[in-house]
Amino acid sequence: MISHTFKTKIYYKDIDQMGIVYYSRYFEFFESARTELLKSIGIAVRDIEKNDIFLPVVSATCDYQKSAKFEDELIIIASISKSPSSRLFIEYKVLADDKSVLATGKTIHGFIDKSGKPKRPPRLLISKINSLINNES
Amino acid sequence: MISHTFKTKIYYKDIDQMGIVYYSRYFEFFESARTELLKSIGIAVRDIEKNDIFLPVVSATCDYQKSAKFEDELIIIASISKSPSSRLFIEYKVLADDKSVLATGKTIHGFIDKSGKPKRPPRLLISKINSLINNES
Amino acid sequence: MISHTFKTKIYYKDIDQMGIVYYSRYFEFFESARTELLKSIGIAVRDIEKNDIFLPVVSATCDYQKSAKFEDELIIIASISKSPSSRLFIEYKVLADDKSVLATGKTIHGFIDKSGKPKRPPRLLISKINSLINNES
Amino acid sequence: MISHTFKTKIYYKDIDQMGIVYYSRYFEFFESARTELLKSIGIAVRDIEKNDIFLPVVSATCDYQKSAKFEDELIIIASISKSPSSRLFIEYKVLADDKSVLATGKTIHGFIDKSGKPKRPPRLLISKINSLINNES
Repeated sequence: MISHTFKTKIYYKDIDQMGIVYYSRYFEFFESARTELLKSIGIAVRDIEKNDIFLPVVSATCDYQKSAKFEDELIIIASISKSPSSRLFIEYKVLADDKSVLATGKTIHGFIDKSGKPKRPPRLLISKINSLINNES
Repeated sequence: MISHTFKTKIYYKDIDQMGIVYYSRYFEFFESARTELLKSIGIAVRDIEKNDIFLPVVSATCDYQKSAKFEDELIIIASISKSPSSRLFIEYKVLADDKSVLATGKTIHGFIDKSGKPKRPPRLLISKINSLINNES
Repeated sequence: MISHTFKTKIYYKDIDQMGIVYYSRYFEFFESARTELLKSIGIAVRDIEKNDIFLPVVSATCDYQKSAKFEDELIIIASISKSPSSRLFIEYKVLADDKSVLATGKTIHGFIDKSGKPKRPPRLLISKINSLINNES
Repeated sequence: MISHTFKTKIYYKDIDQMGIVYYSRYFEFFESARTELLKSIGIAVRDIEKNDIFLPVVSATCDYQKSAKFEDELIIIASISKSPSSRLFIEYKVLADDKSVLATGKTIHGFIDKSGKPKRPPRLLISKINSLINNES
């Protein structure tokens, strides 16, 4: 499994009138966390896009266990445990400062060109992920 | 099944650099659609909250089939097909102007008080939903 | 003066822990309102962009008088009273249901191409605005 | 003058279809930056709110000079140069990695209680700011 830890802090913009983080904001946190995960293995989303490959989300899920509040600092662990084929699977765990689990989630991504036509995943992405997953065993 | 149709229009704020609606925005559309669904059966979220009952999201999912673009008008059909017990289940279908399906989703809600303690769902909510679901059969 | 009235409704996504609309959301409302203002005089932002002209915001201001709450319905009046030269000036008034003023604002827009180079404003835009402003006097 | 430097990174969520940061996002950056500015002088917004004092924005302005792009790292310098009376004035400068100025802005804040009634600014806030401003001269 490839993992990366991303930290973010909660501000007023994230909080709703229940006094907790509004549910859609977690998907923004997931996006930041996966961008950094890919970067940590040498893949800049910016570079992938320069080669006319985009990774739209085809499915997104979040399960919320505990709520986060204003000025909380969150830890988001993004991880990849499966080699990408036509789909890339990414999983997320959101932790509070005290390491208790606030939420878990996953996103599934396709590979398309600017016009929206499906493309093969970038070879570099596959080889990087495969080498890192296999190194573990 | 109880259903309600909500319409929204896509503006610049919703669009990312792929030129399509950013994935987390659909969860905002879902929220607007379910607020209007509940209102259509006589339940104002505002009034529920005055009775110290809140409906936090405990799970949220969206599957994206086709992308939406700037100035598109979207139709979001929110529906409830199950009587709420400790959880309320709501489903969503997002359609383009031409009625093609852009996305489907669901959210699951708990019932808590302001302090976060679980509460029973409001009796009015249950009776309304039950009467409308049963009227159908 | 050219004016257009746009309506929007406040949902949970807009509200912060003070129980009022978060301040940056007004700029999203302004954007929707000005897109509809331009559309009302026959100018689709989508079409302008097809001709490689973009209207980035170069300045934005909002003054907040009264706060808006969950499920409030807001009226946003966007207006243009000056012929655009290298800049387009748009003003906004946000009203509550009872017509009391919640906020006022303005945005100033430049004209650039995709690469960011300044461009002249589209001739159609200028002539439309001029004819409508002059018709008034 | 009291200053604090806050850093943030741009992700997909921030970018619009011009490929640049959407204009309202800067006001979110301002909010994060001022929360950290106040924290840096020993004032937690969270604690102020526990004493039933809230600092709503009564005016917000941003002037945009250069655009920011996906994966850019921004520096936001928030500063206070005036002692607060019934209003608190905060100024912002947004810099790119190379220190070129992307945007400047300011926000003005009132002091109210939960019900919306004006309050005096917290004594601690005034004394902290005054002592820091005066220490400079």
